[in-house]
Amino acid sequence: MRATVLHAPRDIRLDDVAAPELLEDTDAIVRVVASCVCGSDLWPYRGINEVTRPVRIGHEFVGIVENVGSTVSTLQVGDFVIAPFTFSDNTCALCARGVHTSCVNGGFWGQHDKQGHPVDGGQGEIVRVPWADGTLVATPSQPSQAMLTHLLTLSDVFPTGHHAAVSAGVTAGSTVAVVGDGAVGLSAVMAAKRLGAATIVAMSRHESRQQLARQFGADEVVAERGKDGAKAVREILDGIGADFVLECVGTKDSMAQAVQCARPGGRLGYVGVPHDVELNVPAMFARNIGIAGGIAPVRHYIEELLPDVLDGTVEPGLVFDLALPLDQVADGYRAMDERTAIKTMLTI
Amino acid sequence: MRATVLHAPRDIRLDDVAAPELLEDTDAIVRVVASCVCGSDLWPYRGINEVTRPVRIGHEFVGIVENVGSTVSTLQVGDFVIAPFTFSDNTCALCARGVHTSCVNGGFWGQHDKQGHPVDGGQGEIVRVPWADGTLVATPSQPSQAMLTHLLTLSDVFPTGHHAAVSAGVTAGSTVAVVGDGAVGLSAVMAAKRLGAATIVAMSRHESRQQLARQFGADEVVAERGKDGAKAVREILDGIGADFVLECVGTKDSMAQAVQCARPGGRLGYVGVPHDVELNVPAMFARNIGIAGGIAPVRHYIEELLPDVLDGTVEPGLVFDLALPLDQVADGYRAMDERTAIKTMLTI
Repeated sequence: MRATVLHAPRDIRLDDVAAPELLEDTDAIVRVVASCVCGSDLWPYRGINEVTRPVRIGHEFVGIVENVGSTVSTLQVGDFVIAPFTFSDNTCALCARGVHTSCVNGGFWGQHDKQGHPVDGGQGEIVRVPWADGTLVATPSQPSQAMLTHLLTLSDVFPTGHHAAVSAGVTAGSTVAVVGDGAVGLSAVMAAKRLGAATIVAMSRHESRQQLARQFGADEVVAERGKDGAKAVREILDGIGADFVLECVGTKDSMAQAVQCARPGGRLGYVGVPHDVELNVPAMFARNIGIAGGIAPVRHYIEELLPDVLDGTVEPGLVFDLALPLDQVADGYRAMDERTAIKTMLTI
Repeated sequence: MRATVLHAPRDIRLDDVAAPELLEDTDAIVRVVASCVCGSDLWPYRGINEVTRPVRIGHEFVGIVENVGSTVSTLQVGDFVIAPFTFSDNTCALCARGVHTSCVNGGFWGQHDKQGHPVDGGQGEIVRVPWADGTLVATPSQPSQAMLTHLLTLSDVFPTGHHAAVSAGVTAGSTVAVVGDGAVGLSAVMAAKRLGAATIVAMSRHESRQQLARQFGADEVVAERGKDGAKAVREILDGIGADFVLECVGTKDSMAQAVQCARPGGRLGYVGVPHDVELNVPAMFARNIGIAGGIAPVRHYIEELLPDVLDGTVEPGLVFDLALPLDQVADGYRAMDERTAIKTMLTI
């Protein structure tokens, strides 16, 4: 089968690799229908995260179950399934507390499971899924082609935006600012709207992203960044700032900007993978700014969000503005690297 | 009148100063009945916070209203009142959101108000109280002598411990660890118990403080600090750590210890004034650790906590283990500096 391999910074290829087989009774084999490129894939692609050897990559996919291990009980061959960006058993003490990303049996696509077996990346034709009962969520029926993009966002970006909103504590009637206009930031706008925020300010300087932010529920858009941007947000929001700020970038500058957008007593939800982040704790202390979030336990949220996707209440798949066949994966990365695409879907 | 003045590190005196008078229509004059020394007073006392000139000090007091400005409507001469450790108008947009410490008209005892008038410190005989209606809370009747210590804690330590618990989000049935065995840490134990925590682990190596922690509701006490202490906490709490950790110290080490005590997905409530604090954000991100708190908006909580104090449901005044007349204020500071006293009350 063919799978995406990152050989070195900006050297990404579709290679022939061994097709996976069932290795544990709890595994499933899934034929991927669609995958996509994540903003976090760009860190190793750009060489900011070191790449010392060829690595399998990709952690978002939907597909069809081709085979299941002997103890798998909730999935059948032929099921259409959504895979969260980490695998997890959904039964351990930490999964029970909703922190599936800290599952005692969990792990990441493209790495190894706790049994020491290699795990396939999500940008490939076939994936062995550890802890299939715990990891995969099957749709009630085969989805239409039009539904594919929306379901694919349940692998990562929509629940990750939702995690930012839930972690911050977004409530009905509240004011929200969103830092970051990537697919996660835009999803966070949608999530805040879905949770009933009264006023949402999206921060973006790209016209197409501004437009999508408005479509997802943003009432205002601020194009400025940094201190000027934060000042503009505060001016829009009663002069005091946002009740909740959703930080969807993960840099030192974006985090500082997020803190400055918050009103005293405000809360940040942060889901941007942190790179070189510093928090000015004394300044946060003086203004009672809280921060919560982290790597999104997507599996915890899929069942809650799926009905709204299936009935069209939300259309998170609009973040995909480029669809390419898997063999053009290198073009897909390039488009996201150059920010000519918000998010690239790869069809298999 | 006499008031406490910090002249230089460890040089604290009771000086004769001018008695305050009403300066604004919204002021009240309060004759102090009891004041106390705060752990945060020790930072300038020890010279860690620079002292460049003699400063009035103290920010916790209860007393009797002696005079009120022409627009003060909720207080009468003779009322027994509790003063929070900051003054605030209780009406601005930020007070309305419960962040009285960020009040647009607010400020600190011993400094200046927004009108530029000097404001008395709390460790003295008489205090001019700005924004008296917003700042002071009167008790329904004159309290007994035995109630005095308990009411005095409503100036700071009890609501500050409560703020740690509320900011973390302590819920009924949850597990809680408390870092810090000063008066605030002990108050945080009490606050967590009051909010229904199922298991509370106090971290303390001092026998008298351990005993008080147990009296306030701690189920377990861990004497170790740092990584060993955090490991012991995790072992007590299902091997995974605490749902909520209350950080009541404010140093780099105590904050790291608090993060290590939390389970994945756990939340820290932090109220220790931060000194040289660093947060390992990537480690927090990976484990979904959140942190909230800051300088406690005590005024926001007094009315909620006062009934439980008055009816004896809680006895927060047990944190006072030394009572001295005001003219022995220097001994009171020394005892707290040397940790021979948990908290010193000063009677006027």
